[in-house]
Amino acid sequence: MAIPSEMKALLLTGDGYTRTPSGSVLAAMEPYLQPGNIGVPTPGSSQVLIKVSLASINPSDVAFIKGQYGQPRAKGQPAGFEGVGTVVASGGEPYAKSLIGRRIAFATGVTNWGSWAEYAVAEAAGCIPLLDTVRDEDGAALIVNPLTALAMFDIVKEAGEKAFIMTAGASQLCKLIAGLAKEAGYRPIVTVRRDEQIPHLKEIGAAHVLNEKAPDFKAALREVVKTEQPRIFLDAVTGPLASAIFDAMPKRARWIIYGRLDPDTTVIREPGQLIFQHKHIEGFWLVEWMRQFRDKRGPAIMEAQKRFSDGRWSTDVTAVLPLDEAMAKVPAELAKPNGKVFIRP
Amino acid sequence: MAIPSEMKALLLTGDGYTRTPSGSVLAAMEPYLQPGNIGVPTPGSSQVLIKVSLASINPSDVAFIKGQYGQPRAKGQPAGFEGVGTVVASGGEPYAKSLIGRRIAFATGVTNWGSWAEYAVAEAAGCIPLLDTVRDEDGAALIVNPLTALAMFDIVKEAGEKAFIMTAGASQLCKLIAGLAKEAGYRPIVTVRRDEQIPHLKEIGAAHVLNEKAPDFKAALREVVKTEQPRIFLDAVTGPLASAIFDAMPKRARWIIYGRLDPDTTVIREPGQLIFQHKHIEGFWLVEWMRQFRDKRGPAIMEAQKRFSDGRWSTDVTAVLPLDEAMAKVPAELAKPNGKVFIRP
Repeated sequence: MAIPSEMKALLLTGDGYTRTPSGSVLAAMEPYLQPGNIGVPTPGSSQVLIKVSLASINPSDVAFIKGQYGQPRAKGQPAGFEGVGTVVASGGEPYAKSLIGRRIAFATGVTNWGSWAEYAVAEAAGCIPLLDTVRDEDGAALIVNPLTALAMFDIVKEAGEKAFIMTAGASQLCKLIAGLAKEAGYRPIVTVRRDEQIPHLKEIGAAHVLNEKAPDFKAALREVVKTEQPRIFLDAVTGPLASAIFDAMPKRARWIIYGRLDPDTTVIREPGQLIFQHKHIEGFWLVEWMRQFRDKRGPAIMEAQKRFSDGRWSTDVTAVLPLDEAMAKVPAELAKPNGKVFIRP
Repeated sequence: MAIPSEMKALLLTGDGYTRTPSGSVLAAMEPYLQPGNIGVPTPGSSQVLIKVSLASINPSDVAFIKGQYGQPRAKGQPAGFEGVGTVVASGGEPYAKSLIGRRIAFATGVTNWGSWAEYAVAEAAGCIPLLDTVRDEDGAALIVNPLTALAMFDIVKEAGEKAFIMTAGASQLCKLIAGLAKEAGYRPIVTVRRDEQIPHLKEIGAAHVLNEKAPDFKAALREVVKTEQPRIFLDAVTGPLASAIFDAMPKRARWIIYGRLDPDTTVIREPGQLIFQHKHIEGFWLVEWMRQFRDKRGPAIMEAQKRFSDGRWSTDVTAVLPLDEAMAKVPAELAKPNGKVFIRP
């Protein structure tokens, strides 16, 4: 297959970080992206070039294009953190070469060549050759949510306590973790923003669901922390909610930040807790987890593919939009609940 | 030696934490302490009762009696975190019993029976039997500064980078660490609040001394971080200065909080750095360090005692005040620079 010199892509209009953070809703694509043509990139020695079949849209993509995700934007480059596709070229390293012709799930990481484009670049080490039994829709959304769910739940299991806390409980990621937790007899405590979300989360595996907007939230939090003694806090939001939860948690609590959905200031309310109660604040990034725990990477990847192959997991599809229609249609599709929106380049 | 039923002590007048933090200067003792009589306590099974010979006054004591140290005050109990004395009684555990009659350095930890009293209670596991060659003045100030210096410098050495950052550079503790660092060829970067402190700190071992009040502080900080790439940050202050330093540090930086001298709000300026740059925020407490690293405890204790015995280290004594005179005289003595103030019960 001949590789063209140019491709269509959705290109970032902003550079670096925003100075005016604006929450997690995407009202329109135009302030952040524009459709355009750009030269097809050449992969570095440890990288591969992928012909993108399907790209997913995650909350982290929305935060990123707005310039509020903790990774700087590179103006004029394609957006999109993950997708599925076929490797069509590689750099010189043997593992990268070995992937040519393979159908893979990929994450573009910090390559600045995102998946909302006809071609994307990814580190070969972060690519996942897919079983034929995994659908494109599942492969395109395999890394950011399912693998992260397995990795973060592994942290919970390693820590040894049955109870743990998650913010943004209604997210796809938290639902996956809640399901894993239920299977293994763990007790997730999750926060949501609407009472309607409570029954479904309890059904899929949350031991406690707290509405952060409820007037008695702080009392309910204190009570559940006292009863369950959770020590792991998987946090997608930061800001005042996360600060309050960490403050309420017992000795040896670990605040593990993996998202930044609330752009508000994040305060360590009582630094003395880090000194005398041995509390920690750290981050989680799947790329780093895979780098540090090479022995866990393979089993987690296989586990995710098995779950998608045998139907235990299945990605709910809200819409698959051609690249040409994405600018106009993505915001309305993203506003629909409970499913994933894809771009087909 | 018969143990009396009552003893003289300086007793805490406040309970829990203060609502009005007030900086690190002690203008007067009266708002926080009152002299009084209290029953001599009975040690718990893993504890010892100590006849106090000499008790030291550290910045952490001042923060504690004001209710701004991260450990809650117990109203009516004696203050004072460390001292030297003789074990006169113990609980039932064999190690505690074995200390009876020994001259020890001790830290009262969370027993609520402080050292500014005729008798104090400490966990036996945290007591340090002293060599005869260690003076009382050095023994009474052995744990909070010298052992902490050895333990924290051990963290620096384990981390493997030559450069590291310390706030409150002019403190006794930081000076000890700077000296250890110089001996071992490490490069401390320290912050101070007055230009006069710079030459002395450079002489004893600081590679860079930054005045946090200088107008070009932020530029100087960025420059030195860029050149030295420090990854360990030993922080006594928290608040905006510490937030700014952590924010400027490179990937994989560890913010290790061991003090809370600035009562101002402590912000994580960019939580994304914890996610994508693998930065960490943690605490250091000597009690916890000794619990976690039992194999390092003995060598550190011996090293400290050797340094005091052979004169490489020596505690500068500003004043030794009888317990009866402490209320009136401590604040003025503490205001003198560069030495330690002791209470002799």
